[in-house]
Amino acid sequence: MVPRYARPDMTAIWEPEAKYRIWFEIEAHATEKLGELGVVPPSAGKALWDWWATNPKIDVEAIDEKERILKHDVIAFLDWVAEQVGPEARFMHQGMTSSDVLDTTLAVQLAQASDILLADLDDLLAAIKRRAEEHKYTATIGRSHGIHAEPVTFGLKLAQAYAEFDRCKARLKAARAEIATCAISGAVGTFANIDPSVEEYVAGKMGLSVEPVSTQVIPRDRHAMYFSTLAVIAGSIERLAIEIRHLQRTEVLEAEEYFAPGQKGSSAMPHKRNPILTENLTGQARMIRAYALPALENVALWHERDISHSSVERFIGPDATITLDFALARLTNVVDKLLVYPERMQANMDRMGGLIHSQRVLLALTQAGKTRDDAYRLVQRNAMKVWESDGRLMLLDLLKQDEEVTAALSEKELEEKFDLDYHFKHVDTIFARVFG
Amino acid sequence: MVPRYARPDMTAIWEPEAKYRIWFEIEAHATEKLGELGVVPPSAGKALWDWWATNPKIDVEAIDEKERILKHDVIAFLDWVAEQVGPEARFMHQGMTSSDVLDTTLAVQLAQASDILLADLDDLLAAIKRRAEEHKYTATIGRSHGIHAEPVTFGLKLAQAYAEFDRCKARLKAARAEIATCAISGAVGTFANIDPSVEEYVAGKMGLSVEPVSTQVIPRDRHAMYFSTLAVIAGSIERLAIEIRHLQRTEVLEAEEYFAPGQKGSSAMPHKRNPILTENLTGQARMIRAYALPALENVALWHERDISHSSVERFIGPDATITLDFALARLTNVVDKLLVYPERMQANMDRMGGLIHSQRVLLALTQAGKTRDDAYRLVQRNAMKVWESDGRLMLLDLLKQDEEVTAALSEKELEEKFDLDYHFKHVDTIFARVFG
Amino acid sequence: MVPRYARPDMTAIWEPEAKYRIWFEIEAHATEKLGELGVVPPSAGKALWDWWATNPKIDVEAIDEKERILKHDVIAFLDWVAEQVGPEARFMHQGMTSSDVLDTTLAVQLAQASDILLADLDDLLAAIKRRAEEHKYTATIGRSHGIHAEPVTFGLKLAQAYAEFDRCKARLKAARAEIATCAISGAVGTFANIDPSVEEYVAGKMGLSVEPVSTQVIPRDRHAMYFSTLAVIAGSIERLAIEIRHLQRTEVLEAEEYFAPGQKGSSAMPHKRNPILTENLTGQARMIRAYALPALENVALWHERDISHSSVERFIGPDATITLDFALARLTNVVDKLLVYPERMQANMDRMGGLIHSQRVLLALTQAGKTRDDAYRLVQRNAMKVWESDGRLMLLDLLKQDEEVTAALSEKELEEKFDLDYHFKHVDTIFARVFG
Amino acid sequence: MVPRYARPDMTAIWEPEAKYRIWFEIEAHATEKLGELGVVPPSAGKALWDWWATNPKIDVEAIDEKERILKHDVIAFLDWVAEQVGPEARFMHQGMTSSDVLDTTLAVQLAQASDILLADLDDLLAAIKRRAEEHKYTATIGRSHGIHAEPVTFGLKLAQAYAEFDRCKARLKAARAEIATCAISGAVGTFANIDPSVEEYVAGKMGLSVEPVSTQVIPRDRHAMYFSTLAVIAGSIERLAIEIRHLQRTEVLEAEEYFAPGQKGSSAMPHKRNPILTENLTGQARMIRAYALPALENVALWHERDISHSSVERFIGPDATITLDFALARLTNVVDKLLVYPERMQANMDRMGGLIHSQRVLLALTQAGKTRDDAYRLVQRNAMKVWESDGRLMLLDLLKQDEEVTAALSEKELEEKFDLDYHFKHVDTIFARVFG
Repeated sequence: MVPRYARPDMTAIWEPEAKYRIWFEIEAHATEKLGELGVVPPSAGKALWDWWATNPKIDVEAIDEKERILKHDVIAFLDWVAEQVGPEARFMHQGMTSSDVLDTTLAVQLAQASDILLADLDDLLAAIKRRAEEHKYTATIGRSHGIHAEPVTFGLKLAQAYAEFDRCKARLKAARAEIATCAISGAVGTFANIDPSVEEYVAGKMGLSVEPVSTQVIPRDRHAMYFSTLAVIAGSIERLAIEIRHLQRTEVLEAEEYFAPGQKGSSAMPHKRNPILTENLTGQARMIRAYALPALENVALWHERDISHSSVERFIGPDATITLDFALARLTNVVDKLLVYPERMQANMDRMGGLIHSQRVLLALTQAGKTRDDAYRLVQRNAMKVWESDGRLMLLDLLKQDEEVTAALSEKELEEKFDLDYHFKHVDTIFARVFG
Repeated sequence: MVPRYARPDMTAIWEPEAKYRIWFEIEAHATEKLGELGVVPPSAGKALWDWWATNPKIDVEAIDEKERILKHDVIAFLDWVAEQVGPEARFMHQGMTSSDVLDTTLAVQLAQASDILLADLDDLLAAIKRRAEEHKYTATIGRSHGIHAEPVTFGLKLAQAYAEFDRCKARLKAARAEIATCAISGAVGTFANIDPSVEEYVAGKMGLSVEPVSTQVIPRDRHAMYFSTLAVIAGSIERLAIEIRHLQRTEVLEAEEYFAPGQKGSSAMPHKRNPILTENLTGQARMIRAYALPALENVALWHERDISHSSVERFIGPDATITLDFALARLTNVVDKLLVYPERMQANMDRMGGLIHSQRVLLALTQAGKTRDDAYRLVQRNAMKVWESDGRLMLLDLLKQDEEVTAALSEKELEEKFDLDYHFKHVDTIFARVFG
Repeated sequence: MVPRYARPDMTAIWEPEAKYRIWFEIEAHATEKLGELGVVPPSAGKALWDWWATNPKIDVEAIDEKERILKHDVIAFLDWVAEQVGPEARFMHQGMTSSDVLDTTLAVQLAQASDILLADLDDLLAAIKRRAEEHKYTATIGRSHGIHAEPVTFGLKLAQAYAEFDRCKARLKAARAEIATCAISGAVGTFANIDPSVEEYVAGKMGLSVEPVSTQVIPRDRHAMYFSTLAVIAGSIERLAIEIRHLQRTEVLEAEEYFAPGQKGSSAMPHKRNPILTENLTGQARMIRAYALPALENVALWHERDISHSSVERFIGPDATITLDFALARLTNVVDKLLVYPERMQANMDRMGGLIHSQRVLLALTQAGKTRDDAYRLVQRNAMKVWESDGRLMLLDLLKQDEEVTAALSEKELEEKFDLDYHFKHVDTIFARVFG
Repeated sequence: MVPRYARPDMTAIWEPEAKYRIWFEIEAHATEKLGELGVVPPSAGKALWDWWATNPKIDVEAIDEKERILKHDVIAFLDWVAEQVGPEARFMHQGMTSSDVLDTTLAVQLAQASDILLADLDDLLAAIKRRAEEHKYTATIGRSHGIHAEPVTFGLKLAQAYAEFDRCKARLKAARAEIATCAISGAVGTFANIDPSVEEYVAGKMGLSVEPVSTQVIPRDRHAMYFSTLAVIAGSIERLAIEIRHLQRTEVLEAEEYFAPGQKGSSAMPHKRNPILTENLTGQARMIRAYALPALENVALWHERDISHSSVERFIGPDATITLDFALARLTNVVDKLLVYPERMQANMDRMGGLIHSQRVLLALTQAGKTRDDAYRLVQRNAMKVWESDGRLMLLDLLKQDEEVTAALSEKELEEKFDLDYHFKHVDTIFARVFG
């Protein structure tokens, strides 16, 4: 976790105190249910909740100190709680194993993190939608291979991003469901010393579903799927970030990250305004992607479980969710304040001498009876002249002078092919598909 | 693709001829619809389908030769079809771009591949279920950290695997839906030269859904999600493979890959019977995982598209699906024929002098009024003696001689704690959860 | 391996026949040495070499057929050779284990592959150097963050690439040394049944060094280092490929991949000339990087060895080396034929109204006594006007009209700061550092 | 960075204060040299060093506060220093760019981190060597595929680990040299506003070599190589960790992590002693490997530079080095205190009824005139009986009863083949190769 790439709400989920609070709730719910089942005295659960009702401070330091001696975090915690609550606390954790607590807690934390991320995605989607509608018909050149292709609108670019992040949201919901399970099944998961109804009870209280079969641990294919999903979202962040970086290039400059008064682009070159936020997002996306790998390697635990996943999750649990939260918020901010330059878009589109309309002429020639190959050759030979003139020659002019072309298409027919609005007749259709 | 790790049905999907057949179908369906819309003569689609009805051989060599000259695969293909069909063929591909064909074809191929993989998973699930039921009550030791923990059954181990691969199946279905989309939207995806109804028509014919917004290409976040899902499945394969490798270790030998008559385990050591199939699967899992990475990097194409994804997909499209198909089939075979040794399982379980029952004694002491800490200390001090005796001392014997213990629990109470069946009372519950 | 991304010399290394030839040589050298040591009859080695001298065809089919029955590749091979050579062949492989042959063979193949890759790098370096010298003083804008910064020369860009690939060459040499080791140490590597002098003899004959301690297998940290090194080289390929893709963008167009007569850039848009080779290289780089991952996971084999590395290496051995060979050759070709447009470079540099000289003015103001902060503010306030005018205003003009500026610097002093050659005075120094 | 996996010396390198100290030194050395060159007044450098000699506290908070306003870290720092030092400070950073400071600082930090890691490796190597010598002739079974193969010694296992980490040390030295370079070349690296002699001077003072050609930034192929090297080392850590985890398995129990008095292996099962340190190392190895990926993606910066690498390096710079330092120290500790059980090693070796000697019998039969195939068949048919008896039958007994065998080998000859010391005759040779 890098502090400058962290926001407080997400960070709070991963603080020791937050973790211990979830631990307590799981233990207390379980003890309460065990009391109901007659396994432990009903007074045990009550004692725990009574203490909890005093809103006690969790003394992280004291628990850590115990762990240093006991070399076992859950036992250290139970010991500390026992000191606070008194003898009734000895019934806590009856028939449970540490992993029941740890894994269920991780499920709660990842579910909470997912809720923040889902809200982040909502914010991002809202920002994209607003800008997409604003620029629904702002004409700009579509580029394939970095080369001018045919006209699109800036709104269409954003509609694509919207559809992509909307898919990301659906994926994240599915991923949240993957990891939001509760296991209270005891050592090696047989429920030998704890009734399955305890698991059901705790799951319900903690907002989780029941893990159908656990083996002391919740199976890590769930977490592999979860962090892989975050990696896919990171890819989509990178895509939009790179789009903006491209648009801000000096020669393109069709859009620009907001540049605050007082900001300095470069210590050496006072003229610079750099797309640093989206470059920064590009790097963060690389990190979030990288965190999926160890999650995938975590799946193959030995037998009923080993603990190799644990050190990995101490890193990627916080790092992947905190960084993704930050990145989504930063991207939302970038989209929200993005400076968009429609005149420059138009100017760039015009600089190729009308080459961007070459396909329409090709199609018209085909429909006028030329073979596809002939039509291609006719258009290409004029297009290459325009290309080599660096946009000083105009394709329409050259076509009008090409007798093989004019034999097939009249001047008027040719001129019609250079109409920009022709390209936007289905923008509405696409917007309806994307925004409903 | 490594031929020895490839099966014919999956490989066939990725053969050039199969690809060209899909290309033709997409082009012919589109031309037919364009005829209906009056954009091209209705005779064009008919000419294509009439030729197709003659069941023509696709001359891959001839098309490749054209591509070498034209340096463009789709144009090479269209030229070749035009030579076969005659002048009506010039209306093919009207208003379309190569990516309309290529991306929709990849969607069809990945959907077909998914169908094979889903059938593979069904076979695997059936094999696991059969063996799970066979060994529902075969007692074996559960191990955490590679160390004996408490008893489970071999059926429970397999139930866990079943639940895991059942999740994998659900994930693969979702992943299939992700990539099974059709884009026929023309250059940069605006439908400028092709009506959206063509896309809908072709999608329906090819069994795909419509891509809401494409930008010449189908967005690659879909493929990133797809290959990431395959990577997660690979992780689950690795988990079960490693379980079997562990069980076959000389000192454990609770299960063993089937060893065929005539097979040689080692060229140098005639006594060897090695778990080579599951080791092999471990390596394949690493490969399938690795293929997710470039798919994730493919998401951030430049602007409306660049073609960097293409070379990646020429590798991972075939390699990931072919290898996963092979791995699933191999794993099914391993599970199906797995030699299981219940006596050895029992013998291993017995070798720890009853240590595996330590938790029950701990719980009983707690319920008899000991603090958790005292109870732990009492059990641990006897358990460590057993541990150090390498199983020659029996925990029950030592406990009976420990006055602090016997002050709390009678001999009979102690003996009850060493009952194996106690651990299996919820096997039915878990099986019902997993197998329904 | 994707056939279209494969060249014959590299592919040949990985053909079954090539592998079997190396197997034979290792076995024959070992048998010869064993004869010398008196372990086997000297006639055995002679019989093998006599047969070899007849230049026999390796019947791959027959060996494969045997493997299908025996399920062991080396035994299948030995059986086949024995059939060809006669009874003397039974002394082959004495005291050896399959891995002695397989791992030493992989070492030979990777060393051969490295030699091709080193030659590829030499070709690439030569092409870069030639173009660097050609464009040593071709002025172009240096860009940070995609934004115009200050002038560089196109030769300097290539000098950077040269230095980078020169480092890659040094790394590849080191990586070659890592994997070029020979292990003939018998089962579990103790030399129990084979004298260490055999290993030394075979190593010498095969051009390898001796593996200090093998454990039946050559340790896989060597291969992890090897494939990681290829991954780094792939990163450098991607960097140069992306540079060229940027330079070919419509709005930049300072350089362009060679476009062959008859080539079609797009099936739909006849005007397109796309940087498809460098985009293709970008994708290949992603693949080569991905292959490092399973190599890293291969390191932790179980105990003296397991065979999980083997399936991985059947993929990445050929795929990584063949693809890298192809990519290096393709990049060399791109550099060699790259179309470079110095006029366009100059035009682009001029479009920012002289902003690229802002730093020099800043420094001059500082030296004229302004605080750094004041100087920055003075330059920035004029620069931002130029920036917002889209290059229609000239920085020099505005500075001349800014009284705070002219109070510190005379017109002549200001004009001097806009001299292009000022930036190139150390090009020679840098070229001397890079090219020697 | 996870605090529990961090040690203070390594962590200190990455503290803000440490970074600012290096920044200052670079700026002050450069200013001093610029004074010598007459570019700035010699008093400027003196003023900086005079202030530095007062051992001033770096006010991280104040600098951070400035950065929040200026959105530029280096400018914020320069402003703060200027406030401390006075007007002479305005000559700092003359002709330099932020990256000159940032990249050279990262080089210093990574070089310092490398020195700690090299010392860690020395400690680890010393521990391994000590234990290797201690157990040079401690017989244990060598295992391939997890199956008993032939005898080795525990010292040999450790000798392998020594050789592997010795290679890691050589690789890390090479990687350190890769990143220990200094760039003070100004915006876009042309030295336009700063003489190359400044770079040489600062490099010398900071213990770095000169970067031959920088483009504002030090090229990131260097860092890709660096972090890839750390990933390889992580693989070797994982290998030894997994070896120990295997050896501690209940059924094997040939070695064990030290178990401290008062330690609890499981909250639920008082009998457990788990290899948690090496499991923990396994997870850390996964993380360190993962950090290589974004470093590889960082290579392809746009043009002269973009800043996407920066956010990545804020993570992986500290996280990879801190975690590796911790992991190496933890592994050293594990090796140092490892409990080794030679009797158990012997007992395990004995449990296979002498199968581990099968190869020697095979070789003897071959030398007695049997074909390899016949010999293999004879040994295998007896070995399989022993295998299936679970070690209750003895191979030597069965061979003595097999008439086809005894026709070729006498009882005495057979017995000789079951001698353990036979396998250790080259232990000295291997130790000499490894330890010199």
